[in-house]
Amino acid sequence: MHMMKTLLLSKSDVESLLTMKDALESVRQSYMAYNQNKVTQPPIMSIDVPHHNGEVDIKASYSYQDEVICVKAAVGFWDNPKRYQLPTGLAFITLYDARNGLPLCIMDGTHITRYRTGAAGGISAQVLARPDSRIVGVIGAGEQARMQVMALKEVLPIELIKVWSRSEEQRGHYKQEMEGLLGVTVLTCDTPEEAVNSADMVVTTTPSKEPIVRDEWIQPGTHIIAIGADMEGKQEIEARIFARAKVAVDHLAECMKRGETQNPIRSNLIQKSNIHAELGEILLGRKAGRVRHDEITLFDSTGMSIQDSTMACMIYKKATEMGIGSQFPFI
Amino acid sequence: MHMMKTLLLSKSDVESLLTMKDALESVRQSYMAYNQNKVTQPPIMSIDVPHHNGEVDIKASYSYQDEVICVKAAVGFWDNPKRYQLPTGLAFITLYDARNGLPLCIMDGTHITRYRTGAAGGISAQVLARPDSRIVGVIGAGEQARMQVMALKEVLPIELIKVWSRSEEQRGHYKQEMEGLLGVTVLTCDTPEEAVNSADMVVTTTPSKEPIVRDEWIQPGTHIIAIGADMEGKQEIEARIFARAKVAVDHLAECMKRGETQNPIRSNLIQKSNIHAELGEILLGRKAGRVRHDEITLFDSTGMSIQDSTMACMIYKKATEMGIGSQFPFI
Repeated sequence: MHMMKTLLLSKSDVESLLTMKDALESVRQSYMAYNQNKVTQPPIMSIDVPHHNGEVDIKASYSYQDEVICVKAAVGFWDNPKRYQLPTGLAFITLYDARNGLPLCIMDGTHITRYRTGAAGGISAQVLARPDSRIVGVIGAGEQARMQVMALKEVLPIELIKVWSRSEEQRGHYKQEMEGLLGVTVLTCDTPEEAVNSADMVVTTTPSKEPIVRDEWIQPGTHIIAIGADMEGKQEIEARIFARAKVAVDHLAECMKRGETQNPIRSNLIQKSNIHAELGEILLGRKAGRVRHDEITLFDSTGMSIQDSTMACMIYKKATEMGIGSQFPFI
Repeated sequence: MHMMKTLLLSKSDVESLLTMKDALESVRQSYMAYNQNKVTQPPIMSIDVPHHNGEVDIKASYSYQDEVICVKAAVGFWDNPKRYQLPTGLAFITLYDARNGLPLCIMDGTHITRYRTGAAGGISAQVLARPDSRIVGVIGAGEQARMQVMALKEVLPIELIKVWSRSEEQRGHYKQEMEGLLGVTVLTCDTPEEAVNSADMVVTTTPSKEPIVRDEWIQPGTHIIAIGADMEGKQEIEARIFARAKVAVDHLAECMKRGETQNPIRSNLIQKSNIHAELGEILLGRKAGRVRHDEITLFDSTGMSIQDSTMACMIYKKATEMGIGSQFPFI
């Protein structure tokens, strides 16, 4: 019997190996691989845990490029902070060797999920935002309100962040943290309109089920990154915006079903054929990105397993090279 | 932040904790829990890996009784023995705490899968076979031909095993191993008819896509355990047998789609309403088991995540009590 050990990486191991620059590169590669048909990615498996106000989502994929199978269990338990002093969201990733099924690495996937979701918006901005974009309007002040802006700061000359969220306290925390982290000015806004007004880019990151961002607030030339909506029934943006925007998605079928795109589709404001591209098609040069200064562009994302996979592979390789992590012989 | 460690159990750890008696008890409990609606069990997620002659099946469930979420990745890579000196089948199980999503235990699941599949047949025999069953006819001489008989030996007064498989060499190995292991006589047979003739129970364990066992060979009073068929297109038994048998299944929808039951359903020999029960209903006393000496009974099984879960929980508890395994702090 072949002897093999599985590499184990803790949350702090993964944190020590993870940069936004790498996340951006991984996400770019994953979108391109997906649109080159180098990925098998079955629909997500979900288990509700109503007794404990939680859910488990299992996302898996096979990457022909990296020759790995990635299985991620992402759990969301909304009572965790007050009941167990734990975060609401946790994730765990296992990479299997696609040649024989051996488990190569088991790692915390919480940070990877955060970073790859943040990086998605950044990659969209590289091809869909105006290169001179300086002002970001941010709706929501939670985790993705942070990650999205961190990614945008890597790819564009961001100078000002305008943030609105329902909670004034959260806005305050956000300002303090992000000014410290990024060295740019953060303005807290009392209304979403104020945050969106004169922004070059708008990022929505809330779990809202009612539109927050109005069509008439959006100026020509804006790039919108719609992150919050990832389940049926969610909506952050007036559906009419889609009718005048160049729309790109990460995964067409999933976005039409679960992303922000579900809303204009359901209300017949746009058809499937009005969706300009999957982002990978733009990155591969098969479809255009932004072509005019005054276009309104919109990127809708619900997240794909291949993003987790590409990033987890990168972390696994780094850890192996640097001798980080523990080994365990499962078989 | 809450400090917690995940228990890691290797294949040999799990082997050292695993008995067929425990497997039988776990499977009994899992079937009952399933039919008491104490289980959420989404459809199986499958990923084909055609480039390497392999596949990955992900089975997951939430057990309200044990308060765990069980995720199993079972891989099958048919070139493993000759290319990598590895078994074709491997499995890995993670148990998550259903109250907060923390990973309690990661363990090898290969042995658990073998034992729980074997135990399924044994549990069916307790309620559907004649209590004086002494002779088992076994079709196939692989892993489940061994496990099924090991389970039957625990629950019935088995005295003689008659085995047939395509390979004469395999039959010989089987005889030697099983006589040594169980202390009962094993007769190797040159035809499947010989193995089935005068058997009190018939166990089918091959990957066949053509019926091997003929209707006319089956005598009144026989209990048939149909294990091999677990994918669309598989068949080991002439479909007509179903028309004169009392049929029990583990999971109605899955057996109609992927089990031996798919064949008589497809050829309209029986309808859904002709299937007597799910095994859990019999174990709970809601439906009858065997009621007459001359009934032909048949149990069809494709396997359920809750079996993995119940057994993995039992192993996890034993390991914790006995201090077996390693600990790793993922978060």
